[in-house]
Amino acid sequence: MEPMGAAAVIIGNEVLTAKVVDANGPYLIQRLREVGIPLRSLEIVPDEVDFIVEAVSRARQRAKYVFTSGGIGPTHDDVTVRAVALAMGRRVVRLPEMVELIRQKGPERMTPEVMRLADAPEGAVLLHQSGNWYPVLTVEDVFLLPGVPQLFRTQLETVLGRLSGTPVHLRVLYLTAGESAVAGALDRVALDMPHVAIGSYPMFDPALDYSVKVTVESVDKAEVEAAFARLLEELPEGALLRTE
Amino acid sequence: MEPMGAAAVIIGNEVLTAKVVDANGPYLIQRLREVGIPLRSLEIVPDEVDFIVEAVSRARQRAKYVFTSGGIGPTHDDVTVRAVALAMGRRVVRLPEMVELIRQKGPERMTPEVMRLADAPEGAVLLHQSGNWYPVLTVEDVFLLPGVPQLFRTQLETVLGRLSGTPVHLRVLYLTAGESAVAGALDRVALDMPHVAIGSYPMFDPALDYSVKVTVESVDKAEVEAAFARLLEELPEGALLRTE
Repeated sequence: MEPMGAAAVIIGNEVLTAKVVDANGPYLIQRLREVGIPLRSLEIVPDEVDFIVEAVSRARQRAKYVFTSGGIGPTHDDVTVRAVALAMGRRVVRLPEMVELIRQKGPERMTPEVMRLADAPEGAVLLHQSGNWYPVLTVEDVFLLPGVPQLFRTQLETVLGRLSGTPVHLRVLYLTAGESAVAGALDRVALDMPHVAIGSYPMFDPALDYSVKVTVESVDKAEVEAAFARLLEELPEGALLRTE
Repeated sequence: MEPMGAAAVIIGNEVLTAKVVDANGPYLIQRLREVGIPLRSLEIVPDEVDFIVEAVSRARQRAKYVFTSGGIGPTHDDVTVRAVALAMGRRVVRLPEMVELIRQKGPERMTPEVMRLADAPEGAVLLHQSGNWYPVLTVEDVFLLPGVPQLFRTQLETVLGRLSGTPVHLRVLYLTAGESAVAGALDRVALDMPHVAIGSYPMFDPALDYSVKVTVESVDKAEVEAAFARLLEELPEGALLRTE
């Protein structure tokens, strides 16, 4: 089966060592949901070539679009370009188009370290957006985004503007019964309607007026409504508080 | 080489579909850092057996301790136990000790769905902690924690109380020079001192008085201090703002 949706690889020693809380992952999750591209997985790995190669390879098997965050600057710990090239069986080459962009910023800036910004997996394409100096480095459907949150967000929009998603329909049931009391009903409906995703989330927060949140979703609105109606039938008497 | 440190697998459709922001991952990252257990990777996967099997298998190759979050309740979407069993080549069995705990809560609760809470990979051990009804399900060094944040945190402490870590020493340099201007110096020191992790984080926030944060860390304090001293020597004149 052709992989669909997206997968994300966050390259970040600083995240794994608790120096910063990752902001790019949650932001990406939110934006992909908004544009209707399902996210299959998100992995946070250290700035180490082996980890990134493995994570990117797997992400490409799982999903059509792969977003990486981080590791594309000029310093020794920026190894994402090399790792993505390895994961895709390509050489690292210097992109003349990127060399030219750096030259335009000032030839005195063309140190060996800065020139690393022009390195890319062979066959890479630069996605330009007016207003952004630095284009998005792209290889097939792998998008190499920077780790700095401001830049990540700007460049993500450059990419998302070129992709098209399918919005997801969602219905929610709030229950006062505990999860154990409704598990049988949820099971039956989930088994009968495998194309609808049914989620069950117990809550232990006394400030809430419900104890389980049940979500029903699919890109097919009719299927969502059918499963929703089935759940209303199957749930034990008195279990339901309200729906959305 | 014997794997060391920890790896995490967050099982959560609700996270990947932006219904909730994952709180367990960031909390785990912070606590592991505090107790000195290095985290190698963290992956968020859907509530699907194949994804979880793959993620847990890889986590076990990479790290000594594996923490999973979520998917251990009584409903149809709770497939973590089965997936962990598959990843470890074990059968799923019913734990008599857990059956007895459920019975003590009230024999009327022993529905087929609730009894799933007593299922575990063969050879699983329950870690008890006074004050917690539900023990931590553990197979070798894989810890199956619940996804509900309050329970996750409580059970995580039960586990961490049994492990021992090695605190990390950290020095920080705040630079006013840009990352490109210092990349050469960082490269040289990183190359000469491979056992010290040197991180370089450019900041684009005008509210900050520095533009790059450089971190130097290792479990070996003397190595950290040596690398820190080397950086002070190698950095270009005027690049340094302050240290920590």
